[in-house]
Amino acid sequence: MSKALQLHPDRLFPADPGTRSVARALYQSVKDLPIISPHGHTDPEWFASNAAFANASELFITPDHYVFRMFYSQGISMESLGVPTADGATVETDGRKIWRLFSENYHLLRATPSRMWLDSVFSEVFGMEQRLDASTADLYYDSINEKLATDAFKPRALFERFNIELLATTESPLDDLAHHQTILDSGWQGRVITTYRPDNVVDPDYEGFADNLAQFAELTGEDTSTWAGYLAAHRVRRAFFKDMGATATDHGHPSATTANLSTAECEALYERVRHGGASSEDAELFRGQMLTEMAGMSLDDNLVMQIHPGSFRNHNDRVFHRFGRDKGADIPSQTEYVRALKPLLDRYGNEPSLEIILFTLDETSYSRELAPLAGHYPVLRLGPPWWFHDSPEGMRRFRQQATETAGLYNTAGFNDDTRAFLSIPARHDVARRMDCTFLAELVADHRLEEDEAAELAMDLAYNLAKQAYRL
Amino acid sequence: MSKALQLHPDRLFPADPGTRSVARALYQSVKDLPIISPHGHTDPEWFASNAAFANASELFITPDHYVFRMFYSQGISMESLGVPTADGATVETDGRKIWRLFSENYHLLRATPSRMWLDSVFSEVFGMEQRLDASTADLYYDSINEKLATDAFKPRALFERFNIELLATTESPLDDLAHHQTILDSGWQGRVITTYRPDNVVDPDYEGFADNLAQFAELTGEDTSTWAGYLAAHRVRRAFFKDMGATATDHGHPSATTANLSTAECEALYERVRHGGASSEDAELFRGQMLTEMAGMSLDDNLVMQIHPGSFRNHNDRVFHRFGRDKGADIPSQTEYVRALKPLLDRYGNEPSLEIILFTLDETSYSRELAPLAGHYPVLRLGPPWWFHDSPEGMRRFRQQATETAGLYNTAGFNDDTRAFLSIPARHDVARRMDCTFLAELVADHRLEEDEAAELAMDLAYNLAKQAYRL
Amino acid sequence: MSKALQLHPDRLFPADPGTRSVARALYQSVKDLPIISPHGHTDPEWFASNAAFANASELFITPDHYVFRMFYSQGISMESLGVPTADGATVETDGRKIWRLFSENYHLLRATPSRMWLDSVFSEVFGMEQRLDASTADLYYDSINEKLATDAFKPRALFERFNIELLATTESPLDDLAHHQTILDSGWQGRVITTYRPDNVVDPDYEGFADNLAQFAELTGEDTSTWAGYLAAHRVRRAFFKDMGATATDHGHPSATTANLSTAECEALYERVRHGGASSEDAELFRGQMLTEMAGMSLDDNLVMQIHPGSFRNHNDRVFHRFGRDKGADIPSQTEYVRALKPLLDRYGNEPSLEIILFTLDETSYSRELAPLAGHYPVLRLGPPWWFHDSPEGMRRFRQQATETAGLYNTAGFNDDTRAFLSIPARHDVARRMDCTFLAELVADHRLEEDEAAELAMDLAYNLAKQAYRL
Repeated sequence: MSKALQLHPDRLFPADPGTRSVARALYQSVKDLPIISPHGHTDPEWFASNAAFANASELFITPDHYVFRMFYSQGISMESLGVPTADGATVETDGRKIWRLFSENYHLLRATPSRMWLDSVFSEVFGMEQRLDASTADLYYDSINEKLATDAFKPRALFERFNIELLATTESPLDDLAHHQTILDSGWQGRVITTYRPDNVVDPDYEGFADNLAQFAELTGEDTSTWAGYLAAHRVRRAFFKDMGATATDHGHPSATTANLSTAECEALYERVRHGGASSEDAELFRGQMLTEMAGMSLDDNLVMQIHPGSFRNHNDRVFHRFGRDKGADIPSQTEYVRALKPLLDRYGNEPSLEIILFTLDETSYSRELAPLAGHYPVLRLGPPWWFHDSPEGMRRFRQQATETAGLYNTAGFNDDTRAFLSIPARHDVARRMDCTFLAELVADHRLEEDEAAELAMDLAYNLAKQAYRL
Repeated sequence: MSKALQLHPDRLFPADPGTRSVARALYQSVKDLPIISPHGHTDPEWFASNAAFANASELFITPDHYVFRMFYSQGISMESLGVPTADGATVETDGRKIWRLFSENYHLLRATPSRMWLDSVFSEVFGMEQRLDASTADLYYDSINEKLATDAFKPRALFERFNIELLATTESPLDDLAHHQTILDSGWQGRVITTYRPDNVVDPDYEGFADNLAQFAELTGEDTSTWAGYLAAHRVRRAFFKDMGATATDHGHPSATTANLSTAECEALYERVRHGGASSEDAELFRGQMLTEMAGMSLDDNLVMQIHPGSFRNHNDRVFHRFGRDKGADIPSQTEYVRALKPLLDRYGNEPSLEIILFTLDETSYSRELAPLAGHYPVLRLGPPWWFHDSPEGMRRFRQQATETAGLYNTAGFNDDTRAFLSIPARHDVARRMDCTFLAELVADHRLEEDEAAELAMDLAYNLAKQAYRL
Repeated sequence: MSKALQLHPDRLFPADPGTRSVARALYQSVKDLPIISPHGHTDPEWFASNAAFANASELFITPDHYVFRMFYSQGISMESLGVPTADGATVETDGRKIWRLFSENYHLLRATPSRMWLDSVFSEVFGMEQRLDASTADLYYDSINEKLATDAFKPRALFERFNIELLATTESPLDDLAHHQTILDSGWQGRVITTYRPDNVVDPDYEGFADNLAQFAELTGEDTSTWAGYLAAHRVRRAFFKDMGATATDHGHPSATTANLSTAECEALYERVRHGGASSEDAELFRGQMLTEMAGMSLDDNLVMQIHPGSFRNHNDRVFHRFGRDKGADIPSQTEYVRALKPLLDRYGNEPSLEIILFTLDETSYSRELAPLAGHYPVLRLGPPWWFHDSPEGMRRFRQQATETAGLYNTAGFNDDTRAFLSIPARHDVARRMDCTFLAELVADHRLEEDEAAELAMDLAYNLAKQAYRL
């Protein structure tokens, strides 16, 4: 009853045979390039401890909200998928049972990027030759678990097999980076660096903000009860992160709002927000001012700045209270950039040595706001399509809508932005295929010469990410 | 001088020969499936009385604002097209004269879906073999009228010929559903059901709102001068509609705003709006609260809830005063869902037995808001592209923008949403063709296997609509 | 080392061979039609004086913010590209040095429309046979300059060679139109007309607004210290512009806001804004009221009205202060039309003899707002994709998103909207190719017959622009 699982070598290429052959040739020249993964959310502990992954369900399902949200949307409870609750209430723990439920409903992922990534991993990493469905559930579960127990499937071995040249994780200033230290001390050659992501000490709406500031003071020896001391604490941690290999910061704000207040205004604002319980206006203004402050610090320490705005986090109250953050209930909303970024750009927009990479969940901004901004301001670059838009159609829309105004050299290569370590090669492969498809279409209708397309394919797959993240 | 009218068997399929042949095969398997039309605005009187349609002009032109708005936009008066005025002032009544004017200007519809639907009806329903233009106007007018007078072209005969398994109309709670009763009593096998559309007793801005509430009281025996009585009246009419076959409600609001007030707040709000003349804030809040109330009642009676927001109704003052509602002057506007739906979703978003189908006229919400919402919340499904977007390009954008995040199983099949009974097969045919085209493209670039595409083609053409509307 | 520069005859046509051959045939029938350029920003002095252009750098780089913004965004200073500063501070003046810098970085324009226009001009106007890069910089610079010095490359000769039937420039009411008078007096047959663009006497935020009103009074003999006198001054200048050949007005506002105030309110508002320093609310209201006034005057004098809203001008403070206006730092922002235009449309939307052409920089409005408005209101037409969207992908999106609802006959043909005189044929050629591609795709999937496509190709390339601008 089961069906063959075969990754077609021409997947994602244009249907027209002439265009497809151009895409194929371009792809041949980039498919084996090392992977630069300059922005993501894998757990550095994996590479520090190099412990084997537990089993197929814990690897693919319970931690991946890209996957289980779809099942939840179709009435399958998160408990039955083994997603842990916030208060430790019992959920399904039998990995095989979870895997069977997942397999029976695997068709729900048809035509989604999750399906494509999963099939790639099943085929290329685990050598599965039949499609996943109810009839092959046990075969998959046993085969995968068996392999996971072997040395060849431990994190560092996979890192090397995946040909990853560099992998960046994301940590908060309160993180001690012990796992990164362990990796550095281990003598292992894999390059895993951190990224400075200060949301929990920058966003007054973050859970435990006041406590976080206290811990921030303790870690840095700076007096975070004053604006000056608070900024100094950032400088201390940024320097530490940079020493540990970081080349970038990352900022996940609800909007792209920036501000440019006087020192006196900043001091007063900080006093109002630092105890927690800030008004939503003050919280927004503070986050906005902090983006400008972070840009100023980047000017000093050369860390590249990433702005990831526009997600309404934890939209589902009940899910948030039962399961906590990052459970598939973050919903994008309209995001304005032109007025929002002006205060920051008025202050730092023309600095030759500053670099800010902009992301969006609001695709309407590609052609209307982001491409015109990036096609003018020296400090701005566009990040790749993000999150829900890290998908074939999302990538196509990004290139089609941003390129004519921003060009290709104002973009930043690909980010996988993932917690799902095993999917990293599949995600980069999708991006390389879609970029080759985009370039092949420009060649096919004679907007670009083939030699130029070949150069660009290399830039988009490898060079631009290294440049953009100063690697 | 006249030209051949031939519907090409491959219309709307992809140009690439390989992809086209996949689309063609998929389409072969679904083209003859019965039609499920779970949301529309045909007149139940047609099926109750089964009287012959009067003539070509009264059938195709004067009642169809999709059609005459385009002629009006090009300077042809509505009076000359026979569109009746609100005060009964004289308009053209000579059907042949109207038909000739229409025929001379038929080129104005080139490249629009109206043109495609009309040509389909002319060819497939009336057997016309020449294109409509000035030279064939009389031929058309005479041939169509001649056929309309025969039994084979009476509403019930066409319903059967069209292979309609089920057709839902839309009525207000104040409607006595007499036509539906007549149909039920007639012994005719055609299944025509109603839908509970309470805008005129839910929207304080509706013409005659206070009078409507009085009539609502009379019909139900409930005291609509109190909040509790008003809700009870809804329950009474919902039960009646359900008894008459309804499986769904429908809500056409200016925005997607919902609210979740306390009973005391509801009582006070109802008191402020029930006499008419509500402030626009109160009217909006009341409509928003009523969406949440309706969701609660759906939880009790299992009626599927449809929300159709985002049209600025009667935008053209002069046309509204001269001709009344629904004259082609309803203009979509920006529609926000993420914040707007939160109050309702906080209360009912995780209920396993509730189902809400969301529509939009703002295509920017597909990938940004609607697909992420539907790809998470168990109660939500996406309705098909609506109104202006019920078109080949509109359907393509919907699938390309919603599928990767929402999947295909969170969508609700096709709705024709039409008053134009004769166009129903043509509209479903366009949807089936475009869905097969979409699936064929996924097969062509190896994102989907052919056997999966075949299953999905059947789901999109037939199964999902039955499921989504609980038929 | 240099590579061949060859414009492929099939550029921009669909890749599918069958569809491509339809596009090719359509294009053959329109490619040699005369150019109607009804909206643009070339300098009438060129045609009045008929002086030779100075050199390649002054022709292609320093005045063209479409081009130099991209280099600036990649860290190349405007000074080094010879862009003149506002205060006359020294910038690079060595044309050859500028040209070399441009040539070395020419790859930055890959996949942008600027690249396509420039290559067209290099190949078709100057006969260059090698691609521009560092190795061919001097060859280009010398060849172009040599040709520019000859009679065949003077403005009038090029105008004739380009087969321009009509070219409209844009002037403010304060312009004396001396160059247009010179052209008229010269006996030269080239038709260069003006357009009434009153932003500097309509927008209270315009630099020197109060002084402009004083000059407006002087020029017209009207008392611009009163609302009535101010309106009379507009009438005087409109009549003068019309006498000089104008058939249209043009309005570049930050938003599409219109207003419809009483005369008393207008008088009071005018009194508040006319001295300069208006509040931003008053400035917006005044601009909005003036759109309605301009529509009323168009009803009297038959000038076609163009509205170009939605650009945040001079977004980069530092660039604005150093270099002045129009330096690539104008950024589009979200633009609402449905509520914004209602006051004007309530007053004039159904006037058979009025015509208003709407443009947008916010592509989300195509299918949501503009197509529904233009597909209903007799006074409205849609202008072609504008500015950043005057590009292959921009044109494709416009046709795909606007056509099904607005039809093709509610559009206004192509505008090049350019200051870059030499690129005019290339821009019209891109538009003709993309329209033929769009039509060929409709033919290929049988939404349109070939004879209809042929008629439409002619309309889109030539007839609609003449009609829309009443030429």
